[in-house]
Amino acid sequence: MYNQSDLKDLVDKALLNLSYSDEAKKLIEPVSYILSIGGKRLRPVMALMACNLFSDKIGKAIMPAAGIEVFHNFTLVHDDIMDNAPVRRNLPTIHSKWNVNQAILSGDVMAFIANECFLHAPPDKLISVFHTFNKAAIEVCTGQQLDMDYEKTSAITRQQYLRMIELKTAVLVSASLKIGALIGGAEEKDSDLLYEFGRNLGLAFQIQDDMLDIWGDSQVFGKTRGGDIVANKKTLPLIRALELAEGKVLKQLREQLSAKDPDPEEKVRIIISIYDKLKIREATEKTADDYIDSAFTLLGKVSVSSERKKELENLAGSLIGRDR
Amino acid sequence: MYNQSDLKDLVDKALLNLSYSDEAKKLIEPVSYILSIGGKRLRPVMALMACNLFSDKIGKAIMPAAGIEVFHNFTLVHDDIMDNAPVRRNLPTIHSKWNVNQAILSGDVMAFIANECFLHAPPDKLISVFHTFNKAAIEVCTGQQLDMDYEKTSAITRQQYLRMIELKTAVLVSASLKIGALIGGAEEKDSDLLYEFGRNLGLAFQIQDDMLDIWGDSQVFGKTRGGDIVANKKTLPLIRALELAEGKVLKQLREQLSAKDPDPEEKVRIIISIYDKLKIREATEKTADDYIDSAFTLLGKVSVSSERKKELENLAGSLIGRDR
Repeated sequence: MYNQSDLKDLVDKALLNLSYSDEAKKLIEPVSYILSIGGKRLRPVMALMACNLFSDKIGKAIMPAAGIEVFHNFTLVHDDIMDNAPVRRNLPTIHSKWNVNQAILSGDVMAFIANECFLHAPPDKLISVFHTFNKAAIEVCTGQQLDMDYEKTSAITRQQYLRMIELKTAVLVSASLKIGALIGGAEEKDSDLLYEFGRNLGLAFQIQDDMLDIWGDSQVFGKTRGGDIVANKKTLPLIRALELAEGKVLKQLREQLSAKDPDPEEKVRIIISIYDKLKIREATEKTADDYIDSAFTLLGKVSVSSERKKELENLAGSLIGRDR
Repeated sequence: MYNQSDLKDLVDKALLNLSYSDEAKKLIEPVSYILSIGGKRLRPVMALMACNLFSDKIGKAIMPAAGIEVFHNFTLVHDDIMDNAPVRRNLPTIHSKWNVNQAILSGDVMAFIANECFLHAPPDKLISVFHTFNKAAIEVCTGQQLDMDYEKTSAITRQQYLRMIELKTAVLVSASLKIGALIGGAEEKDSDLLYEFGRNLGLAFQIQDDMLDIWGDSQVFGKTRGGDIVANKKTLPLIRALELAEGKVLKQLREQLSAKDPDPEEKVRIIISIYDKLKIREATEKTADDYIDSAFTLLGKVSVSSERKKELENLAGSLIGRDR
């Protein structure tokens, strides 16, 4: 079985070896830039692990896995424009290093570079692989739309929030696993189980990420705590707090949310104290834990030996802080 | 044989019947809008005509043809952002009717809707169809990049210009014809001939379009004449004039190009008079005619009866004003 580090190397190598026409260097420079500033390549690594569950030969899955990473980076480039984000992975985003038009166009070309990667899937799996990808890609766009819509909505429900992060984040994890499984020769039942495993894992991961912003150790996670709180970002803790708060506490919470130019540190302190009163941390952890339990139960049902599942289990465990 | 009008109806119907999730209405509204404001659907119609050359059954080509039109509109949506264009087909562009972020995201989703259309190609043609599409899509992005680059370049050569319009405009016409031919069961030699036919036709069409801006009848073509001249757009007539002009005439041309806030009508009048002196119209027409001749010669070599080629010949003839 291949481990995470082996697989990341294979993905990095495939991404580095993508060939481009050099007819318009300015088009490709940003593509090489965003693909070189890395990240853990989690989605393609998971695709390869899913393939490896069913087949010892993972070579046939490497290009489609690279395609998933190219697509993922395409969404980052365009999302960063829409979110007006100047920095990603501690480096300037494409639209800030170049300009918005360049980020649109270099992003666009990545969608078709990704397509070309998927065409390397085994011919008898091509339609199912491509359909799984297209469905996920359309859903990721839908999730980004809901995220933008919800920014302008005064209140959203927990259900709306969970569906939004499912579309924006979890479905691509799901699709990566399913694509890998399909290429590995999995039966439908197993590829569907892995899809659902990915969905639950992705949801848990995103909820934990929201929690890190509030209760995380900023030295460990490299972000300033409370950014989401200052921005009134509608994360699960805030949505739940608005559901649970009553009387004075609700009034205090609403005041903080509507305050013009509040002192950021003070705002973070007050809102966290409200969360503590309402036991939001425990409730949110419970939600994430339920998804984690579901994820591992689903993985358990996949019809290959526990031995073969070890690498995927380890990776999932490390992602959601439950090392087994 | 199906005629242009039959085929346009089939394409319109296929586009109208595309199904979308209604989970994010705001994402899809602009997609339906841009696809409903029409145009002649030339690319998908040509794809279907190319299919019809080799097969009486064109049903299998309809969804891929629709995919080409969805992709083409995706490029229009994003190009309009980059070009800062407020109006298309006499209606507001998506980024002006909604906003730039919406135009980016609704554009993006169209790329994956197009993908899903291509998956309806016959399975044994899927790889060649998809590869032809991806290659064209990457080239269209490359052409748009060169167009943006050349805006900031003081002078470009005829060769650079022709390659830019080839990438930006002609290759999608080529790819449409080739995709239709492949689905219709054409042999490689014939699908390549149709690809080259499309390339020459697309180049001729674009050069003629540049000429219309200068020498066209504004009442017939619905555009104010001379817009490209006022904007110093590097079209073939201007590039050639800069090559041919000498002495006083060159000095006069350069003055017009570098004048700050010139009177637009005066500028158009002077530059057209320079073009007349240098016989630019005749030279440009000759270039277009050479491409047209090549196009029809290539179409003539396609190994099906002249009878079957009639519809495609008629359509091409009407596009480049050479009705046969």
